[in-house]
Amino acid sequence: MKSRPPRLFVESPLKAGAIVQLTPAQAHYLGNVMRAGTGGRAALFNGRDGEWSAVIESIGKKTGLLRPAAQTREQEPEPENGIWLAFAPVKKTASRFIVEKATELGVTLLMPVLTARTQGRGINTERLRANAVEAAEQCGRLTVPRIVPPAALADLPGQWPAARRLLFLDESGKGAPIAEVLASMKTTMKGKTIQIGVLSGPEGGFSAAELDWLGKLPFSTATDLGRRILRAETAAIAALACCQALVGDWT
Amino acid sequence: MKSRPPRLFVESPLKAGAIVQLTPAQAHYLGNVMRAGTGGRAALFNGRDGEWSAVIESIGKKTGLLRPAAQTREQEPEPENGIWLAFAPVKKTASRFIVEKATELGVTLLMPVLTARTQGRGINTERLRANAVEAAEQCGRLTVPRIVPPAALADLPGQWPAARRLLFLDESGKGAPIAEVLASMKTTMKGKTIQIGVLSGPEGGFSAAELDWLGKLPFSTATDLGRRILRAETAAIAALACCQALVGDWT
Repeated sequence: MKSRPPRLFVESPLKAGAIVQLTPAQAHYLGNVMRAGTGGRAALFNGRDGEWSAVIESIGKKTGLLRPAAQTREQEPEPENGIWLAFAPVKKTASRFIVEKATELGVTLLMPVLTARTQGRGINTERLRANAVEAAEQCGRLTVPRIVPPAALADLPGQWPAARRLLFLDESGKGAPIAEVLASMKTTMKGKTIQIGVLSGPEGGFSAAELDWLGKLPFSTATDLGRRILRAETAAIAALACCQALVGDWT
Repeated sequence: MKSRPPRLFVESPLKAGAIVQLTPAQAHYLGNVMRAGTGGRAALFNGRDGEWSAVIESIGKKTGLLRPAAQTREQEPEPENGIWLAFAPVKKTASRFIVEKATELGVTLLMPVLTARTQGRGINTERLRANAVEAAEQCGRLTVPRIVPPAALADLPGQWPAARRLLFLDESGKGAPIAEVLASMKTTMKGKTIQIGVLSGPEGGFSAAELDWLGKLPFSTATDLGRRILRAETAAIAALACCQALVGDWT
């Protein structure tokens, strides 16, 4: 197997003649973990200028300078039908997992949502962003999903576009099977852009009052993932996979 | 929220009049972690006798005796259309994750498969089994998926029933989209039991020779999960979710 060059997300502009300075963590990764040296190559992207093959001009323990040499991929805008994920944060590892897998699965916006049973209210958006960057580097995306600040569930309607259908994962058994929900959207929206978001609950699920309230939102659909009790992160990822497979960019 | 009683998988028979002895780990979990005491309740299942509500007769640091009091659920046989997962083992945490999520997603058989690029050849089937037991306890299943001993990829055909379609996850872009594969199976198999298995590759994917060989098996279908590079465990779980949603027990 020909291994791919290390791939890094940077903030600076990427163009011929530019010089990109690495963060200490990136320099450590490139020099110490990947053992790349001066004259070596890395792939860079910044979410705006496509992907560039860059030459390592210098690399130290905590510093590194790279020179973008050639654009290898053109930037593509985030697709209009990019999937969103609103999720009740769970324990640290599980939240990390949700962000990482959602990024791999092409989610374009992540929204932590505080519910009655949400644990870990001290949500570290910076850490979630770092998880998303790492996953974007690994999976070949040209973008990093946007992570918006945590919102209370009650404030969700104010932040949710009316045209974007919200599939909330309802463990009570009252939701429609996810394949049915997505197939029916496909029929209704024939020829139009399908905009969709998943809302996954906390460990222990949404409260009865929350489910009731969610069910009454004009843009929501109660969605069912079978009779086994899924962990919060399993439910989120499973639902996103079904969305990509049935109405997203795996089709 | 009314919390569920602790739920434990045991090997002993469950019936009125029986006494069930806990393992030291179970006694620790029940007594120290869940803080259950004598006279308290736990739910027990063994994969054969349904689920029982049991009374704690005694509980110590490393020992515990429970008395099954009433059957709360009848045993259901594993469904004929239960999904199988053959997977190239990955690093410890990721393999654990695959087994845990596959169990939650209702997989009935797990088969570690050694490929050219498989890491972690020292596969601990006992540990994987423990992961599966824990996930089965948590998700409310009445069974624990079977975990068969690791097999070389070349030996897979000898162990794979000809009637069970093998969806191998092909990152080369030559596979058909998973929703298409499953929809076409549904049409072809109309009225018959759909038996399906997913085969997920190692980090770095299958080799070109392996993909070629897999594509020629009479029971296999090259299956695609889009253009982003998914981690091995993400691909496995995403594919299983699609199978349950489209032809499995979420329908």
